Amino acid sequence: MSQYDPRGVVLINGVLLTMLGLTMLIPALVDLAYGHPDHIVFIESAGVTIFCGGAMVTATFRRGIQLNIRQAFILTTSVWIVLPAFAALPLAFSELRMSYTDAYFEAMSGLTTTGATVITGLDNSPPGILIWRAILQWLGGVGIIVTAIAVLPLLQVGGMQLFRMESSEQSDKALPRAAQIAGATTVAYVILTVACAAALFAVDVRAFDAIAHAMTTVATGGFSTMDASVGGLQNASAEWIITLFMVLGSLPFVLYLQAVRGRPLLLWRDTQVRWFFATVGGAILLILALSGLTERTDEALDAVRLAAFNVISIITGTGYASDDYGAWGRSATVLFFFFTFIGGCAGSTSCGIKIFRFRVMFESARIQIVQLIRPNTVIVPRFNGRPLETHVIDAVMGYFFLFAMVFGTLAFLLTLTGLDLTTAISGAATAVSNVGPGLGDTIGPAGNFQPLPDTAKWLLSAGMLLGRLEFLTVMVLFTPRFWRA
Amino acid sequence: MSQYDPRGVVLINGVLLTMLGLTMLIPALVDLAYGHPDHIVFIESAGVTIFCGGAMVTATFRRGIQLNIRQAFILTTSVWIVLPAFAALPLAFSELRMSYTDAYFEAMSGLTTTGATVITGLDNSPPGILIWRAILQWLGGVGIIVTAIAVLPLLQVGGMQLFRMESSEQSDKALPRAAQIAGATTVAYVILTVACAAALFAVDVRAFDAIAHAMTTVATGGFSTMDASVGGLQNASAEWIITLFMVLGSLPFVLYLQAVRGRPLLLWRDTQVRWFFATVGGAILLILALSGLTERTDEALDAVRLAAFNVISIITGTGYASDDYGAWGRSATVLFFFFTFIGGCAGSTSCGIKIFRFRVMFESARIQIVQLIRPNTVIVPRFNGRPLETHVIDAVMGYFFLFAMVFGTLAFLLTLTGLDLTTAISGAATAVSNVGPGLGDTIGPAGNFQPLPDTAKWLLSAGMLLGRLEFLTVMVLFTPRFWRA
Repeated sequence: MSQYDPRGVVLINGVLLTMLGLTMLIPALVDLAYGHPDHIVFIESAGVTIFCGGAMVTATFRRGIQLNIRQAFILTTSVWIVLPAFAALPLAFSELRMSYTDAYFEAMSGLTTTGATVITGLDNSPPGILIWRAILQWLGGVGIIVTAIAVLPLLQVGGMQLFRMESSEQSDKALPRAAQIAGATTVAYVILTVACAAALFAVDVRAFDAIAHAMTTVATGGFSTMDASVGGLQNASAEWIITLFMVLGSLPFVLYLQAVRGRPLLLWRDTQVRWFFATVGGAILLILALSGLTERTDEALDAVRLAAFNVISIITGTGYASDDYGAWGRSATVLFFFFTFIGGCAGSTSCGIKIFRFRVMFESARIQIVQLIRPNTVIVPRFNGRPLETHVIDAVMGYFFLFAMVFGTLAFLLTLTGLDLTTAISGAATAVSNVGPGLGDTIGPAGNFQPLPDTAKWLLSAGMLLGRLEFLTVMVLFTPRFWRA
Repeated sequence: MSQYDPRGVVLINGVLLTMLGLTMLIPALVDLAYGHPDHIVFIESAGVTIFCGGAMVTATFRRGIQLNIRQAFILTTSVWIVLPAFAALPLAFSELRMSYTDAYFEAMSGLTTTGATVITGLDNSPPGILIWRAILQWLGGVGIIVTAIAVLPLLQVGGMQLFRMESSEQSDKALPRAAQIAGATTVAYVILTVACAAALFAVDVRAFDAIAHAMTTVATGGFSTMDASVGGLQNASAEWIITLFMVLGSLPFVLYLQAVRGRPLLLWRDTQVRWFFATVGGAILLILALSGLTERTDEALDAVRLAAFNVISIITGTGYASDDYGAWGRSATVLFFFFTFIGGCAGSTSCGIKIFRFRVMFESARIQIVQLIRPNTVIVPRFNGRPLETHVIDAVMGYFFLFAMVFGTLAFLLTLTGLDLTTAISGAATAVSNVGPGLGDTIGPAGNFQPLPDTAKWLLSAGMLLGRLEFLTVMVLFTPRFWRA
């Protein structure tokens, strides 16, 4: 197979499209069950999607497919561009009468687990559409875990090689254990989702809302079935449950597998996990201290719940809101802006820069400081008890640099479309970090992305894609060197 | 001499203080010449400063002083804290009746060549004060070149070891050629300043304004003698001259020395210089395209002048304004915000992140991309034709990380003092980049820092110090490890 043979890439895209098409039958059934005429829309969309996917498969099918590094790059990016294009169809055809731009934005926001929405009137939207949005995030969540565990470490993007499986060697043949890991991870993911839905149902959340929220919680996605997001449930117990499962969705899924295999302590000894909990705890305390929540709420526990829910929602990149934290004061607003960037653990559904990268930077900074003072000391940087290779540190730092460049460029381009500064800057931040809400009246937790111009929506869609695939995976395709023999 | 023997540090601080005190006699003479009673203030301040400096020198004087790395760190930071404390005295005692907070802010802004001012009514300020502010920036400019050439490379801060002199070895004995380099650089600096003043005078700028502006131009400082900054000169030729000398102040001074020694081509072959001109050129074109300046001005050349002057003023960290570029449209405003961070060349008076760090990051990114595609390729990163060592790349990346952390923390702390978001964020940016003006109505190019609360002024002073000394130089003093035996 030639280096640029596109057949393997087309084949896998075709398989995934066919699966996506089949999944569209679920919202069709839901609309049927609720007696909503939009079930036709899902069946038509499924037809188109399965036809296209099936055609791609039949045109390129062969056994024993092996992808090289180049093809793995092309595959990863193309999947996250092609799937939203078809996932948008039901949204565009439905009674919501969304433009294709809006539908693509919503589908990209779903599949990247961002959670930014252009739909106003969720409360009165067809049930099929609501469950379709939840399904998109749920699929995107499992897709990104598989990508983060099986693909990115092989591609050595952004320091993800830290999380290379011990048994996977660095070779031209990518995806060797992908199916195996995908299977085990998906089981853990399903169990968490079912547990979350059952817990929500147990505290009297409507079955439909419980299932939809469970799917978007474990995916740290943030699409809700209500305009007021989770705040609309008016259910404190449900908020605590969702808080717990947002955290569970942000921990490294590989550690769950190891916990099941009798090594549960690995979870608590993991550097990422410890730093994640320390960060989240510190952030909640800061918000409690600065937001004046304790004065506004009757009971201290309410203040803690509001702070914990919204802080964890933003840090993990979920993007639910249970209150308009844009009104918690200026300092709290700035903090929420910074929280946008943090993210959860690598190998989870969560988004943003991610805790391990901060950990690697601090380790590098610590060693630099030691060597400033004693230039002749040799110290080996460590991560999670193991030596940290130089090229991993470089990759992590390169990630920070690309993050800043993409964020800055995107914010600038957004102002060219006529957005105000707060919307442009927080919109760029929330897109590349895959969080969901921005700041300000338009795209803040109390608003949505509907009023933005079309160009801004396409730019933000591109930002979500870049952020979700950790920048370099996509950007490498734009280098002439990539295409050189 | 013990590792922590403070005598060498106190001695050099004393010498510099005495010199600062003697310099205060210049504005005293100016006020005398103009018949202004404030000359007494400068003589009194000089007395206090020379007395304190002299006492420090006599208490610690010894021949053949040698500083180790630790002492060099303490010296560098302490100089930039102690000198503003005394430089503030004339400002505090003068008829302007500034609070000590305001006076310290102004002196720190001067000595770090930031150029942010708290003085309203410059047009009616005593001539001694105006020339004293120019002197502070001029001294700060030569001080930072000497520090950047002779001290920071030895301290290996932020990748500055790239610019280590070929003959200076890495040893515990810092500052070996400091005096020699300081001498040659100061000559180049004086020549540039005189040339700039003469050129300004030749285009009919008042002698006083010509000298004051020449001093703050070559220092890329940005203090003006007028409330309307350079715009107040109403002199297009003067703006072009100042534009030219801001650029000259941002090029590596070492290359001037080499040009004089018969190697002028080094200046044009230097990577930093080429990237600097490319960046500045691109930035001017972007602003011309986006600001609508060509429609607002009668002649195309006026638009070019306005764009070039203000872009170069911000990129080099000078901070003059010849127009309220905050009113050039939203996209232009965002661009100016980003320009704040860029900076000029290392080894010049200019501030900010500096061109060479972007160059190093791009080189690192380029190599990472090559290795992503072909994992077995080995490529040596290069800078200015020479191999780039890994620890230099790490130091540069560490600088970016510290920059982002300090900027974020400062912006957050500023909101705690009650500032609005635009003022807090752009204020933090302009302080750590040592530029001068921020954005918005308060601290934008048409405003000043007077209305800010005292706490904000102290925070911004700390930000200027951290930015000017490239963060790590100061921050290392706060690590327990620094003080451990």
